[in-house]
Amino acid sequence: MNTVNQREFLKAADARLLEANTPSCDILDVPASEPLRLDCDRLLAPFRVAYKTYGALNGAKSNAILIAHALTMDQYVASENPVTGKPGWWENMVGPGKPIDTDRFFVICANILGGCMGSTGPASINPATGKPWGLDFPVITIGDMVDAQVRLIDHLGIGELFCVIGGSMGGMQVLEWASRHKERVFSAMPIATAAWHSSQNIAFHEVGRQAVMADPEWAQGRYLELGREPRNGLAVARMAAHITYLSEEALHHKFGRNLQDRDTKTFSFNADFQVESYLRHQGSTFVDRFDANCYLYITRAMDYFDLAAEHGDVLANAFKGTKTRFCVVSFTSDWLYPTRESREIVQALNAVAANVSFVEVESDKGHDAFLLDEPELSAAVRGFLNAAAGKRGLEPARETR
Amino acid sequence: MNTVNQREFLKAADARLLEANTPSCDILDVPASEPLRLDCDRLLAPFRVAYKTYGALNGAKSNAILIAHALTMDQYVASENPVTGKPGWWENMVGPGKPIDTDRFFVICANILGGCMGSTGPASINPATGKPWGLDFPVITIGDMVDAQVRLIDHLGIGELFCVIGGSMGGMQVLEWASRHKERVFSAMPIATAAWHSSQNIAFHEVGRQAVMADPEWAQGRYLELGREPRNGLAVARMAAHITYLSEEALHHKFGRNLQDRDTKTFSFNADFQVESYLRHQGSTFVDRFDANCYLYITRAMDYFDLAAEHGDVLANAFKGTKTRFCVVSFTSDWLYPTRESREIVQALNAVAANVSFVEVESDKGHDAFLLDEPELSAAVRGFLNAAAGKRGLEPARETR
Repeated sequence: MNTVNQREFLKAADARLLEANTPSCDILDVPASEPLRLDCDRLLAPFRVAYKTYGALNGAKSNAILIAHALTMDQYVASENPVTGKPGWWENMVGPGKPIDTDRFFVICANILGGCMGSTGPASINPATGKPWGLDFPVITIGDMVDAQVRLIDHLGIGELFCVIGGSMGGMQVLEWASRHKERVFSAMPIATAAWHSSQNIAFHEVGRQAVMADPEWAQGRYLELGREPRNGLAVARMAAHITYLSEEALHHKFGRNLQDRDTKTFSFNADFQVESYLRHQGSTFVDRFDANCYLYITRAMDYFDLAAEHGDVLANAFKGTKTRFCVVSFTSDWLYPTRESREIVQALNAVAANVSFVEVESDKGHDAFLLDEPELSAAVRGFLNAAAGKRGLEPARETR
Repeated sequence: MNTVNQREFLKAADARLLEANTPSCDILDVPASEPLRLDCDRLLAPFRVAYKTYGALNGAKSNAILIAHALTMDQYVASENPVTGKPGWWENMVGPGKPIDTDRFFVICANILGGCMGSTGPASINPATGKPWGLDFPVITIGDMVDAQVRLIDHLGIGELFCVIGGSMGGMQVLEWASRHKERVFSAMPIATAAWHSSQNIAFHEVGRQAVMADPEWAQGRYLELGREPRNGLAVARMAAHITYLSEEALHHKFGRNLQDRDTKTFSFNADFQVESYLRHQGSTFVDRFDANCYLYITRAMDYFDLAAEHGDVLANAFKGTKTRFCVVSFTSDWLYPTRESREIVQALNAVAANVSFVEVESDKGHDAFLLDEPELSAAVRGFLNAAAGKRGLEPARETR
């Protein structure tokens, strides 16, 4: 594709593809001369990190909080998402006076490497070919995502992050930061996560990938350049995954066996039950905002994540010598990353005499609880950041001044 | 399709389609004059019940055990399956001297209505059109399956079944038998089942159906007459379902994060992990033996199952006046039909002062445990049948004579 064709291609593309290539946020363009060595041993350059910041960096550059986002989230943590037009995904947590207080902290959130919201990923144009990367994009890891974020933190002139915080896959990045770059992390808050992806979780991801790849519109990953889209496959993948984000109780309380807009069963394959209608909606709205190949790459990165394996099968080794203050959070009804997996992280941190606290939040909302307005979670985040801020010598929060 | 075309169609079809239409087992053909009134209020006739028997019926016709099979099982409970060439699916449980002792009991197992192993279902030829029923087949219920079995039991001249036994969807049929036809059931053993299908279980089924229907080869359900097959979609459906049949522990012990035939990650979308390879295998072998439309119909029947709703939302009402002896069995690691759902059945039976015992088998094998060689389950089945046989005045088992 020459430049003219490339422009036509992007012009023809929808808001989502435009956002993947011309993000409406801050950008760090890493030049070809400064490649990233990926865990697969390939070099990636040039590449781009698309990011948002909230609040102001203080003179000592000591108040920066990096939020690491989950699988299908993005940098729009506390501001409108340009593709969906919806509010930021963690607005209940991040903002002026909120637990992650932007009056006090400088908050950074970057789209992950491999994402589809402006950072380089399979939906980006490969400068070598002028076509979308597709399956030519290297298979990346959680560690690669973190290393790309390191470039951003360097670019912002920040030596040490006051805190790295994130849930689910964001939590994996927190753990990787606290392991690979421990000297640059003052405090860390991994939420609803694990130090390795379980067999069952790999299984669910594999179902999702197979659903995408079974869709003929996927076209061996070349759908973008062919103007096609594996909508059905990606919707099925999302539906399967979505079940794992909720708890059985949550589904039971929310939907039970209630019928959708009808009094009796239709004796058909319509969405008779509310839960069916809900899942179909989840599938179809997801497809409007997410790229199928990105879904393959990011689930793969999660499957590959195994912090113990990276350290001789001893998780504690990942944190040897750490001075970071940790707060690990799990939710009682999360069956994707159950509490026992958080306890394994805590035990590993205890084994190296790290400063760690652990909060198990009572919730029936399943894994998704970390995204929802859970007062116990908000209190834990606020409390941990306040205490850490005191130790870091930051000014107290306004209400406590 | 005329008769010649129909023959050509069947000749061209594979072993599976042949078996659906010309089963290699005993057959009950119910004529057009004796239609079955289905729960959807449509009449079905003529229709066929394909079945296998093992052992001999005694003179008093008092030693008959009906085994109700699960979603993807069939009548080949203790003999080679003609499509797969594999042993019967419950050979560890059924046979001479086994817990369900064919030296002692007359064992009947019929392919369910809606199935694809010879009983009438969506893969059968619709006599009205000469083409496969496809989506013209009426949406059936667990109660309809049971009512079709009643015709078979009548045909065999059996008034009262000594026992009805089955796991998973088979257990739903057991409960429906013990409710709709309580006077014909001396004893009943519902295993790893529930009196209603939960929201989460409906959700997983809906994902499977959407995976099938998303496959263009499904062709709005007309794939058989078009000579097509939604293999990819059905494989994805099976993969998702299969995860729910196992437990997290089982997956962890069986596969963990072990790699398949390699020492290092390939940084690709190959089946690097054993669990991926295993799931892909489960998907592809299932497609060889099962019909996609049948999968839609049977999962739908399970979703619709709600024995309490059929009885004014009071489960106990389903069993009012019962004289049947019950033994309810659950497995500790079954998260598809967790123990608490079996307890609800037991509580309902207690509420009507029924004769009921309850066994929770300690197992880490998840829902699939009912199909596996679980000594505690075998002992429970053997013990319950022995005790019931005594009450029924049957001769003692050989080893105890």
